[in-house]
Amino acid sequence: MTDFDPKDFFAKNEQRFIDEWKEFLTFPSISADPAHEQDCLNCASWLVKHLDKIGFSSRLLETSSKPVVFAEHKGKPGKPVVLFYGHYDVQPVDPLNEWQSPPFQPAFRNGRIYARGAEDNKGQLFAALKAMETLISHNKLNCTVKIAIEGEEEYGSRGISKSLEKWKDILKADILMACDTSMSKIDTPTIIMGLRGIVSLEVQLTGPIHDIHSGMYGGIAPNPAAEMAKLIASLHNPDGSIAVAGMYDSVTEPSPREKALANSCSPDINSYTQKIGVPPVAGEKRFTPPERVGFRPSIDINGIHSGYGGPGGKTIIPSRAIAKITSRLVPGQDPALCLETIIRHLEKYTPAGLNFSVTEKSIGGPGFRLNLDSPLVKKAGKVLKNTFGKEPMFMWEGASIPIVAELARISGAEPLLIGFGLDDDKIHAPNESFSIEQFRMGYLYSVSMLSEL
Amino acid sequence: MTDFDPKDFFAKNEQRFIDEWKEFLTFPSISADPAHEQDCLNCASWLVKHLDKIGFSSRLLETSSKPVVFAEHKGKPGKPVVLFYGHYDVQPVDPLNEWQSPPFQPAFRNGRIYARGAEDNKGQLFAALKAMETLISHNKLNCTVKIAIEGEEEYGSRGISKSLEKWKDILKADILMACDTSMSKIDTPTIIMGLRGIVSLEVQLTGPIHDIHSGMYGGIAPNPAAEMAKLIASLHNPDGSIAVAGMYDSVTEPSPREKALANSCSPDINSYTQKIGVPPVAGEKRFTPPERVGFRPSIDINGIHSGYGGPGGKTIIPSRAIAKITSRLVPGQDPALCLETIIRHLEKYTPAGLNFSVTEKSIGGPGFRLNLDSPLVKKAGKVLKNTFGKEPMFMWEGASIPIVAELARISGAEPLLIGFGLDDDKIHAPNESFSIEQFRMGYLYSVSMLSEL
Repeated sequence: MTDFDPKDFFAKNEQRFIDEWKEFLTFPSISADPAHEQDCLNCASWLVKHLDKIGFSSRLLETSSKPVVFAEHKGKPGKPVVLFYGHYDVQPVDPLNEWQSPPFQPAFRNGRIYARGAEDNKGQLFAALKAMETLISHNKLNCTVKIAIEGEEEYGSRGISKSLEKWKDILKADILMACDTSMSKIDTPTIIMGLRGIVSLEVQLTGPIHDIHSGMYGGIAPNPAAEMAKLIASLHNPDGSIAVAGMYDSVTEPSPREKALANSCSPDINSYTQKIGVPPVAGEKRFTPPERVGFRPSIDINGIHSGYGGPGGKTIIPSRAIAKITSRLVPGQDPALCLETIIRHLEKYTPAGLNFSVTEKSIGGPGFRLNLDSPLVKKAGKVLKNTFGKEPMFMWEGASIPIVAELARISGAEPLLIGFGLDDDKIHAPNESFSIEQFRMGYLYSVSMLSEL
Repeated sequence: MTDFDPKDFFAKNEQRFIDEWKEFLTFPSISADPAHEQDCLNCASWLVKHLDKIGFSSRLLETSSKPVVFAEHKGKPGKPVVLFYGHYDVQPVDPLNEWQSPPFQPAFRNGRIYARGAEDNKGQLFAALKAMETLISHNKLNCTVKIAIEGEEEYGSRGISKSLEKWKDILKADILMACDTSMSKIDTPTIIMGLRGIVSLEVQLTGPIHDIHSGMYGGIAPNPAAEMAKLIASLHNPDGSIAVAGMYDSVTEPSPREKALANSCSPDINSYTQKIGVPPVAGEKRFTPPERVGFRPSIDINGIHSGYGGPGGKTIIPSRAIAKITSRLVPGQDPALCLETIIRHLEKYTPAGLNFSVTEKSIGGPGFRLNLDSPLVKKAGKVLKNTFGKEPMFMWEGASIPIVAELARISGAEPLLIGFGLDDDKIHAPNESFSIEQFRMGYLYSVSMLSEL
């Protein structure tokens, strides 16, 4: 199909690609932290300029919050329209002292680039952009490509999701490509056939008007730290299942074929445990780890904070406690209903004497599963086989890209989720990184897939 | 007995007393924080100079940690020897942003001095020192007074408690006076007939080698935040009692007279709730609030911290969780045994996949109760009645001054615990303060009591 060798072309341009990618990584575009508002805007502007330079017609689409970078390359008539989705925002960086090099000063070590966003999603996204640039420069991008890169994927996609309805026309497409996913193992290209949905909330317990003396009041005044612990504990049954009444009611069961394919990606318990530090022993015992991650909801505590945490001790009953909670959802579960169900559960278990409040809440989106028999999935499988010499795996991921389901609905496009992340990348954690080899895989797949469309 | 009027003398010297007290309060002598080591030493040196100036012979007694300020005034032969105990260290100050004026810049507002330590213990202690100064200057201090002011009461009295055995001779006394306690209500002098003991620990749960993605691992990887919450929740039964097996086994029950006297100080539930922000609904339902505080052990969570606590959200499973825990003990309970019992309970409830460790632990001391029929208690009651025109109350306090029991044993002295603290003082909390009126009560009581000995 192509009259140039993408592998050769990558080798010749590798240093330039890496330099540009590192420049992209210097923006501290942390969407969750208002202090980084301007950094997010600077990052979006940089992307617009970059996309213009490589052959797209680009602009910012304003939202009620962070802008979306939108770009378009017109293809040949009769060719499909691809909507490519990514995000330029990143997770917060704390605990900062655990980073071996500063999170926004990209560093090359052992064949990897270390930086916040190195993989998620700037690295994966940039590999695809470099593939598009390559095809445009060789006059080989035949399909129309629309690009939508949002700035709040790590913060509930707030801005973009409210604006989608009014962008219905410009987003119209046949195929929705996203590259925010992982491989089941190294060198094994993987097609993601489902993602979990997500809802988030921060809850607070208050009571004592200030931190009070644990001697004078210990054993009579209700303790927000202890009671928040009890609230959190009430969310799960001893068998690892969720104890919130009704949370499993509408879960759609996977087909036997989906189950079998998911289990064929089952991780080796020893190497999983070594890599993650803990064995996969949480959650419902009656399901395998891939089934629990792919087909079952979870409730996860992302943070709990109350009282003194400094050196030594402080004999207080804290005046308040907060917990940050997310719940991952699967097909069949209505996100708004699940969020309310969790809140009602916590209200019901709030003890006498303390005040419960929801200080933040957001609905990411529902979980979804894709069709194993679609021609697009078959074509992608063939491209991956030809490019990497291996049959791809099929995986149902536990993570969420809530906007994907919404984008698919609005654009009318069929999602195709292929990414090249690995556990080693430590996304959302200190010392996030992405290897040049994974970046190269993303590039080669994007060149081949887009050439085939 | 006295040929001067202490009330007049206080009025004439009030401004000087306050100025000196404020100077004492400017030292950030936070014993729990190693960053304030030098501030503690500076505060101790200031006290030595001050005590020398007002008529004592003073020096620093070195310990393995913070020094103890020791001073002595020789009285007349045949008169009793009083050992006066206090502490120059203070609690940490966070949350700093809740202070209306900086904690170490003492501020006068509404008849009160606001500063960390304004009451606990610098204010109470300084009122007594000014009483001794007054008596010495009028040649009216007939008994021998030994003063021991330690620098780690808020941090387990580590230094002093290890040195007590070797100071046995110099500490020998008949009466142990301490002023680190409260009144049951305003204008009602109160004799403390018992204190709870205390043990402290910090525990940690670790597992994931770093914060991991809550989507990819949610529902399979054990979550230290959620599991720490379960551990904390396991410490109490639904009825409010302690669920740690064996914790009540050796509790000494109070006598019916002790119970009746304690209940006569029962707080008005409405005004208690208004003042503290929460009703006294925690703990064992079958005991009244004064019984629970005075005669029953408690386990209190002083802090719990895990994962993200900043703005917005972060979709992680945290790599670790810590909790700071104290347990208040009553007579009959062995502190070392109770500490081990709590640790064994937490170890037993640690879930598969996570590692439990005790990162700090300390034994404060046992709880104790004093004899209602002692001649010293009767004499103190008479002094209080004469000075303030009211029968004193008897109270069994929930707080701990662990060193008091040890000092009593080593010195051979009978403890006499009379202080003038109130809930309004907000000790251990932001905006700690002590009113000039309470300071004056402490001064007047000390003048009268020491004159009578």
